Amino acid sequence: MSIIRNIFKYQSSNKDRQFLVTITQLIGFKPKKIKPYQTAFTHRSLNLKNDKGHSVNYERLEFLGDAMLSAVIADHLFIEVPSGDEGYLTKMRSKIVSREHLNELGEALGLVNLIKSKIPKTQFGRNIHGNLFEALVGAIFLDKGYKFCEKFIYKTIIIPHVDIAKLEGKVISYKSLLIEWCQKEKKTFTYNIYDDTGIDELRHFAVKLVIDNKVIGKARATSKKKAEEKASKRAFFVLQKEIEA
Amino acid sequence: MSIIRNIFKYQSSNKDRQFLVTITQLIGFKPKKIKPYQTAFTHRSLNLKNDKGHSVNYERLEFLGDAMLSAVIADHLFIEVPSGDEGYLTKMRSKIVSREHLNELGEALGLVNLIKSKIPKTQFGRNIHGNLFEALVGAIFLDKGYKFCEKFIYKTIIIPHVDIAKLEGKVISYKSLLIEWCQKEKKTFTYNIYDDTGIDELRHFAVKLVIDNKVIGKARATSKKKAEEKASKRAFFVLQKEIEA
Repeated sequence: MSIIRNIFKYQSSNKDRQFLVTITQLIGFKPKKIKPYQTAFTHRSLNLKNDKGHSVNYERLEFLGDAMLSAVIADHLFIEVPSGDEGYLTKMRSKIVSREHLNELGEALGLVNLIKSKIPKTQFGRNIHGNLFEALVGAIFLDKGYKFCEKFIYKTIIIPHVDIAKLEGKVISYKSLLIEWCQKEKKTFTYNIYDDTGIDELRHFAVKLVIDNKVIGKARATSKKKAEEKASKRAFFVLQKEIEA
Repeated sequence: MSIIRNIFKYQSSNKDRQFLVTITQLIGFKPKKIKPYQTAFTHRSLNLKNDKGHSVNYERLEFLGDAMLSAVIADHLFIEVPSGDEGYLTKMRSKIVSREHLNELGEALGLVNLIKSKIPKTQFGRNIHGNLFEALVGAIFLDKGYKFCEKFIYKTIIIPHVDIAKLEGKVISYKSLLIEWCQKEKKTFTYNIYDDTGIDELRHFAVKLVIDNKVIGKARATSKKKAEEKASKRAFFVLQKEIEA
């Protein structure tokens, strides 16, 4: 009996170790406590309770994560958009933390693969991705506090996705901006697209934007359109001085 | 000319020093930067602009302060109400940061006395108090970061005003709870009320709650009812062991 128990213990601690490694890769630093992250990926269908009889699942962490997201994004916008009044800043923030956007972020990080649930993954609605993303932010806050939470939000949202010019409606599409400029400057351009699914469950596309026979921007995304836009944006920042001259 | 300029300089720096002292007393620690606090008390009617042409008044700081308030209160409720689900926590937070509650807090701190405006103070609506409170929280965040902001919110809101039992509807009124207990235990009780306006602009009342000839709770507030409730609550915590026995 004790041998069996030990084997179980070994298996479970092995799983814990694997989970710790995955979380460390995901968030970019080693957690102090593993429990909040375990809760962040526990679905209510497991009907888990703690020793005080309180339900353990990711839903309460969503509340916490949502609050931290709002605070960090508010701070960022306050500094970056000095001309925006209160109403304008509020509107910009809602765009950034929109359900749709959080779903995309959670999906891109593959959070649903970590969930523990009695319901098969295929039966979750789309909002599962955003909910898990919020819960993960809440877990980071509980584990490491505001500063680390801020770091994670910068890494996953603000740096790759928050584009003030675009949010302000000054740039609708980097692709069209770039094409216009190429035509005006009489430069040739091609978007070379190929399948690049790699280890991802979802289909992915990679694109190379070639201007005058030189690769200027590369990107990878879940749709051709998104990959092209991403590559264009990168190219835009590379060529910015020339374009704005 | 230079003498006059020096006098002006002296006067203005004297005023700045006075403002710094007032802010230090108000927030309970010395600011690193004074500018955010100056902005937090600048009304739009002054039409102030910075060197980049952006409007300078407290409205943008309200956006920031509101976000920080929501985050700190979310964290507090998450820990203190482990049995509450997401929806319940959200509802409790809205009660705490309600417009009416923030107005009361701002009014109690006398924030409106610090405002710089072209409009006379008597012409502001009631929301000025809550707006200035949010802006002050925003200024503290800008000046000293999340941890200090949290400290200030604990000191001004959470410790004196956030009463989970009451918010959860378990205790509606500490006064009636106490009176019931006195009657059951055959104890005499009196609420001794007297005017105690002191240096405050608004009328204030002080109350001493005397149970069996002993002062058990004292309080001071802007209405008799509020002062009685506050004194009862304090008495409740003093007598808690006896009451719950």
